[in-house]
Amino acid sequence: MKSFSKFLSRLKDILGENKVFTQPKDLIAYSFDSSAAIGVPLAVVFPERKEEVVDVLKLIAEYKIPLVPRGAGTATTGSAVSHTQGLILSFERMNRILELNLEERIVVVQPGVLNGELKNYLKKFGLFYPPDPASYNYSTIGGNVATGAGGPRGLKYGTTKDYVLALEVGLPGGKIFWTGPLTLKGVVGYNLTPLFVGSEGTLGVFTEIVLKVVPLPETRVLLLSYHEKEEEPLEIISELLKALITPASAEFIDKTTLLALSKNKQIELHDKKVKSLLFLELDGTVESVKKELKKVEELYQMKGIFYHKADTEEKIESLWEIRRAVSPSVRVLGERKISDDVVLPRRNMKEFLKKIRKLEEEKGIYVCCFGHAGDGNFHVNLLFSSEKEEEAKSLRKAILKEVLNLKGTLSGEHGIGYVKRSFVAWELTPLQLELMRGLKKVFDPENLLNPEIKIPF
Amino acid sequence: MKSFSKFLSRLKDILGENKVFTQPKDLIAYSFDSSAAIGVPLAVVFPERKEEVVDVLKLIAEYKIPLVPRGAGTATTGSAVSHTQGLILSFERMNRILELNLEERIVVVQPGVLNGELKNYLKKFGLFYPPDPASYNYSTIGGNVATGAGGPRGLKYGTTKDYVLALEVGLPGGKIFWTGPLTLKGVVGYNLTPLFVGSEGTLGVFTEIVLKVVPLPETRVLLLSYHEKEEEPLEIISELLKALITPASAEFIDKTTLLALSKNKQIELHDKKVKSLLFLELDGTVESVKKELKKVEELYQMKGIFYHKADTEEKIESLWEIRRAVSPSVRVLGERKISDDVVLPRRNMKEFLKKIRKLEEEKGIYVCCFGHAGDGNFHVNLLFSSEKEEEAKSLRKAILKEVLNLKGTLSGEHGIGYVKRSFVAWELTPLQLELMRGLKKVFDPENLLNPEIKIPF
Repeated sequence: MKSFSKFLSRLKDILGENKVFTQPKDLIAYSFDSSAAIGVPLAVVFPERKEEVVDVLKLIAEYKIPLVPRGAGTATTGSAVSHTQGLILSFERMNRILELNLEERIVVVQPGVLNGELKNYLKKFGLFYPPDPASYNYSTIGGNVATGAGGPRGLKYGTTKDYVLALEVGLPGGKIFWTGPLTLKGVVGYNLTPLFVGSEGTLGVFTEIVLKVVPLPETRVLLLSYHEKEEEPLEIISELLKALITPASAEFIDKTTLLALSKNKQIELHDKKVKSLLFLELDGTVESVKKELKKVEELYQMKGIFYHKADTEEKIESLWEIRRAVSPSVRVLGERKISDDVVLPRRNMKEFLKKIRKLEEEKGIYVCCFGHAGDGNFHVNLLFSSEKEEEAKSLRKAILKEVLNLKGTLSGEHGIGYVKRSFVAWELTPLQLELMRGLKKVFDPENLLNPEIKIPF
Repeated sequence: MKSFSKFLSRLKDILGENKVFTQPKDLIAYSFDSSAAIGVPLAVVFPERKEEVVDVLKLIAEYKIPLVPRGAGTATTGSAVSHTQGLILSFERMNRILELNLEERIVVVQPGVLNGELKNYLKKFGLFYPPDPASYNYSTIGGNVATGAGGPRGLKYGTTKDYVLALEVGLPGGKIFWTGPLTLKGVVGYNLTPLFVGSEGTLGVFTEIVLKVVPLPETRVLLLSYHEKEEEPLEIISELLKALITPASAEFIDKTTLLALSKNKQIELHDKKVKSLLFLELDGTVESVKKELKKVEELYQMKGIFYHKADTEEKIESLWEIRRAVSPSVRVLGERKISDDVVLPRRNMKEFLKKIRKLEEEKGIYVCCFGHAGDGNFHVNLLFSSEKEEEAKSLRKAILKEVLNLKGTLSGEHGIGYVKRSFVAWELTPLQLELMRGLKKVFDPENLLNPEIKIPF
């Protein structure tokens, strides 16, 4: 790395001083994301145009400097951090919505546009970009695409992968290409677009993103229900789906998470027998929501389930506040936290919850198991005191093994990044890994893009 | 190929005589698909279990015999034909629906299941597999996945790629793997599934297919409208989409196709001023269809458009018969036919149609331009007498160039296969081609799977 000063001076020549940060205070500000992983980069660059991204990609290939593309740094896995003393390429200054076409129902954006910003913009046209990670007000579309972000609406609307029409991608050396045509259909060549969704910056750097958008639903309604039998919400989700009702969201709060919310005074439970909650949102046309709501309310009444109903934007958002308070609240249960976002086949969710409760009791470590139960995606958070670190780590492993026993997957939407890479070979077969390493080599033969993450080498 | 007799005898040892066809009459029966491409294979095998597919894949790697997987042979591009005297692997005997899970809303099938058979099976459960290529009653799911098949419902429901949850894939040498987890979400490793959708048998052989299914719409209604201004249907599609109405299907019949339908007595036009037709299907809940229908009918009345309305299954299917009569009917316009299935960005459809009409007039060759205009997908058919062969070929090239000028793509759902391979480099850049060749090598380094098609080497 002795040529680094030369690299840096060429970088500054190309981009200008104000787009290249090298001061320790700045490097530290870009040395972490929302995980425990830390890595101080050698420099941070802030390109403003795609031509500048291309120039950076040329230079890193010439000097063999690793590069980590970064949106807002809300990744929970260390995928937005430089682990090999490389360059951080921040998309903060490439944050423009370039084009909305109502006839095509597509929107073209730069990677640094915030998800929430895009949502607000589209709303004015009666349109909607459904993926809604909890971070949507401050995470970028580029980062959402790189991680394959999900969110509560995944149940009815799918995740980021279902909305990316095409990507413009830059490779080390400065080569740039589109992953597919800008038409709504197309089967010429191989479909490269989905390969990049969830690739966590390891296959290429996005320079432009074309998203599909859909009409906003006419109306929505949210039910928050209280359950004396912890697994009842999971049964309800299955019953509704079998009855051909597809809620927009179905968010589960388990017993331990409920304890945290209660301790953190986010919710006051008058009935001490309540063991879990279900947030169930229905959306669609006024009539279809009315009809579905009737069926859900009949089911709740039949089962003797108590619930709150919110049917104005304001009331709905205020109930959702409780759900959003979960992640900060679980902290009250322990100073240390290990979090995963596993996915089970729906039919195995109940069995998984039972196993979790058993392991929790055996180990004396809090295990929160909340989240997007509608699509089988549980956020499993272990909370413990620092002296229980080793036991917690072994508990985590036991839980991940349980996920795989029950035919689940180790990450639904957060990705692998740095912190979960050692578990990847538990899930993927040697053949799958070999093929994925082969794919990585096609796009990044010198392993310059976000090395040390995603796939174990 | 001198070891071919040894290969054949080992194949028969493994599969048994009744699963290996080598008689000339059988080879000829498997030497063509629905394109003009012809290639007589050395043998045709009919495995009945995935283990037998794996055995065949081992053997072809050992003897370096090329293999072409084949569903029902309805491909329109020569992708189901052996162009290099290899083996045809027919999935005719692997045609079982293995599992339906109502809670997961997934169905697991063998590749040889017919699309229409699956549709009928799901109907009993109130469920629905939307992709509907014209061949759906006799084409297989394996073939639909391999080509990335679309159909009229693509406008609202997307195409095959939107319904494949995961694939079990075999590679030369007999290695077998799943392209992703069997959960509804997942971001561990790279997303391999979509890479195989539309890969036309060049990357791997499917041994099991997991599809997502959706609830059947409550009701549907079909409008067939008659237009004096040929491009009016294209304007209507854009107006509806801008008004946030998403029809299930919007099928366009242009002036020349209408002439063919009329000559073939599929439709009787009392009003000689009619220049084009639009089939517009709305589906959803009873109320939403009613509401959308009202808007569409108001628009038609305002514009003075005459239309038929079908609102029972029987009437709807009988109107769709006219649409289905298109492909056989265009033959009345000329003994020879060249067909393409191009896609334009919606905003450029009108411009494209104008260019087509101009070229048609200049060259004196019939150009039908009908199809899934809702998602920009036109089936362009040239009809001519054999002495006009050379002029037709040059007209075809001019049309394909026009598609690319207007930012379109050369195939929306039929694929490239053998017959369109020489045009691929017109659309894809050298970099895109290089990357795709790299991907092919990852999965099939010896180029044994459906060689000579899809990507020009």
